[in-house]
Amino acid sequence: MIFRQLFDAESWTYTYLLADPNTHEAILIDSVQEQAERDAKVLHELGLTLKYLLETHVHADHITGVSKLKGIYPTAQSVVSERAGASCADIKVNDKDHIQVGSIVIQVLATPGHTDGCVSYYTDGKVFTGDALLIRGCGRTDFQQGDAGRLYDSVTRQLFTLPDETLVYPAHNYIGLTCSSIGEEKHHNPRLGEHKNREEFISIMNNLNLPYPKKIMESVPANLECGRIEQVN
Amino acid sequence: MIFRQLFDAESWTYTYLLADPNTHEAILIDSVQEQAERDAKVLHELGLTLKYLLETHVHADHITGVSKLKGIYPTAQSVVSERAGASCADIKVNDKDHIQVGSIVIQVLATPGHTDGCVSYYTDGKVFTGDALLIRGCGRTDFQQGDAGRLYDSVTRQLFTLPDETLVYPAHNYIGLTCSSIGEEKHHNPRLGEHKNREEFISIMNNLNLPYPKKIMESVPANLECGRIEQVN
Repeated sequence: MIFRQLFDAESWTYTYLLADPNTHEAILIDSVQEQAERDAKVLHELGLTLKYLLETHVHADHITGVSKLKGIYPTAQSVVSERAGASCADIKVNDKDHIQVGSIVIQVLATPGHTDGCVSYYTDGKVFTGDALLIRGCGRTDFQQGDAGRLYDSVTRQLFTLPDETLVYPAHNYIGLTCSSIGEEKHHNPRLGEHKNREEFISIMNNLNLPYPKKIMESVPANLECGRIEQVN
Repeated sequence: MIFRQLFDAESWTYTYLLADPNTHEAILIDSVQEQAERDAKVLHELGLTLKYLLETHVHADHITGVSKLKGIYPTAQSVVSERAGASCADIKVNDKDHIQVGSIVIQVLATPGHTDGCVSYYTDGKVFTGDALLIRGCGRTDFQQGDAGRLYDSVTRQLFTLPDETLVYPAHNYIGLTCSSIGEEKHHNPRLGEHKNREEFISIMNNLNLPYPKKIMESVPANLECGRIEQVN
């Protein structure tokens, strides 16, 4: 499998490229609008055709690259959770669904709690967790149908049941860490690690007192339209 | 092998952690002074002991984390090219030398041209190229004994003779790309790709007209002392 991690320094977002080197079909997970040309250039130089644009959720901190990338790759299909409320999506997925490109089979894991429509994507010893599980952290739960108890259940019952050596690739990191593992997060995640129970986690999450993301007012409506911002301005 | 790519957003530097999961011994390549505590925390949480601190060269854009990390891991040894002029280094290496931790054997490849003492480190299908070969670019050659002709020879005779599928992990990238491959750079590097000859490359490099790196006046003398900045202030 061809695998590339890409970074947007403005929103601190990781985008992931996965491709089958034999069929030359590619997937992008959590693309960023401002990086669409960069991503298309990487795809072009690697000789790949973009087949699917997967979203882990409706982001509040950046606008997805889905619309711009579909302009470049008109046959690419967007994939979002059924519960995300993004009626624009070509394919709406639910827990345990599969997405396949060539020999790469991606399993959908419903991991709500940061938003109602959060999913993680698992393939080949890697799990792409969006904002559900971050490296030594997790997504906040105080907007977009956030629910700390549901997030605790998603992480502990879905993600923490994966093998310890599974590599965790999140949607963001703000201190330059690029990946983690399930085993590491079970031990060292200060909010969700093995010494924190559900009540402690809910208490932590309900007392973060964070300001709203700078771009939430433009990002959420734009992402509910798969990044077609001209429809919401 | 445990492998982690780490990023410093201030200097856009990649640091690499490699470790043997059985012996729990680790190497850091191109650490950054301001990230020493972060890196030590990652090492600690992964249960690793730092054995070697490898430098690809004497950096002009950031101060190495070697001195601070040796303060945390006193038995760790710094490794720099014999030709780098860093008399502080514990181990000075030359082309084709090897550095070993547990079952990980790292081969030294002399790749001068950005500086006289640039080396790349090869192991397990990965090559850490420092500033010799960047993703779709290369280090500049207009200071620190830079020599465009030597850099062309280093890249084409040393790095481009590695298998095409070898992953290229550079010391920097400024647009969010985290790795490349030798095959990609042979085809798509606009300065060094297959359609550029030695004379064209020298002409490109001699006409970049870039300003000096912001931190060169503090970084080079500090790095010649392995990051012990108190000796140079």
